[in-house]
Amino acid sequence: MYIDRQAIEQMEHLYRVAFINSLSGFKSANLLGTVDNQRRTNLSIVSSCVHIGAHPPLLAMVIRPHSVDRHSLENLLETGEYTLNHVSDDIFRQAHQTSARYPKDTSEFGATGLTELWQEGFKAPYVQEASIRLGLQFREHHHLEINKTEFIIGEIMQVWVPDDCVGADGLVDIEKAGTVALSGLDRYHRSEQLARLSYAKPDRPLEDI
Amino acid sequence: MYIDRQAIEQMEHLYRVAFINSLSGFKSANLLGTVDNQRRTNLSIVSSCVHIGAHPPLLAMVIRPHSVDRHSLENLLETGEYTLNHVSDDIFRQAHQTSARYPKDTSEFGATGLTELWQEGFKAPYVQEASIRLGLQFREHHHLEINKTEFIIGEIMQVWVPDDCVGADGLVDIEKAGTVALSGLDRYHRSEQLARLSYAKPDRPLEDI
Repeated sequence: MYIDRQAIEQMEHLYRVAFINSLSGFKSANLLGTVDNQRRTNLSIVSSCVHIGAHPPLLAMVIRPHSVDRHSLENLLETGEYTLNHVSDDIFRQAHQTSARYPKDTSEFGATGLTELWQEGFKAPYVQEASIRLGLQFREHHHLEINKTEFIIGEIMQVWVPDDCVGADGLVDIEKAGTVALSGLDRYHRSEQLARLSYAKPDRPLEDI
Repeated sequence: MYIDRQAIEQMEHLYRVAFINSLSGFKSANLLGTVDNQRRTNLSIVSSCVHIGAHPPLLAMVIRPHSVDRHSLENLLETGEYTLNHVSDDIFRQAHQTSARYPKDTSEFGATGLTELWQEGFKAPYVQEASIRLGLQFREHHHLEINKTEFIIGEIMQVWVPDDCVGADGLVDIEKAGTVALSGLDRYHRSEQLARLSYAKPDRPLEDI
């Protein structure tokens, strides 16, 4: 089935949203926790988290300033700190529910039954039910002119991971931690390992490790 | 297990790379196909593709200009076009092998046994073995000052998907298409659907769809 740019243009709006959202492949699923200066918390599912680099440890995400992400963006710029909490198979329904358009004075924590977890000296709330939790400081901001979205880069300052999910070589077993993957806008998947492959070299066959 | 910024700093280099690369959650796995003006092709696995928007249809990726991604970046800026091809469970070993440091005059297509597929009027090569193939035109470029990486946004101009993988509402069944997810640097996963959830509203329970 071949679809060209013109055919994409002619798609019905919601059909196009579902179709194009499927094309990047599997997406990460994280809960973005923030708070404003009046201590009003916000929690929002984000599917656009992407690794930027390990040294310094950086993650980025794309935020739509005219969507329900708006409060999160305002809050993280206000306080300079935010959390990212892996969505696991235990909490993916509550995580999806955070995408509803709640008013700013309703916290998605209370509305979805997820629990705020505060860490001394860190401004933003974590999600207690998440198995992997990251605390970040805002570092760099790019306005994506082409569709008026915002690209936000943060530095990882705090990490919680289950003891039994960190390998001797540093790899975190996110499958064992129950982390889910997203496809499209609304489809959640668990994973099953196919293989772990050795570092690729031009003249050496790959090995399963 | 709690790890703070200082503990990350003290990690051994490769341990830190594996650890931090695991923290964003599951990643997409795509093969980036390019060609230079001397018709030398290049194929490179990328795990940083991220959805930017549906209208216009935009995908972005992070490229490290001092890594094996260098040739891909030079090529796509030279010709203005590139392809992204989903890595499926049939080809993930060859896809991983493209990350080896081949010299510029060695094509990763030939070296890994993947097949170039050319489409009339489009400059960059597709991967014939991929079940989902996208052709993109370069649109916007941001230099990420914080770690000297490049953020490249392209517009989707051509799409091939299997006929039986497109739902009535536009969602592409990438699980059925065999698309794999990545975690860390080198771990490949197949997926199994947990649920598809309805559009979230503040005062209505979610439904499985």
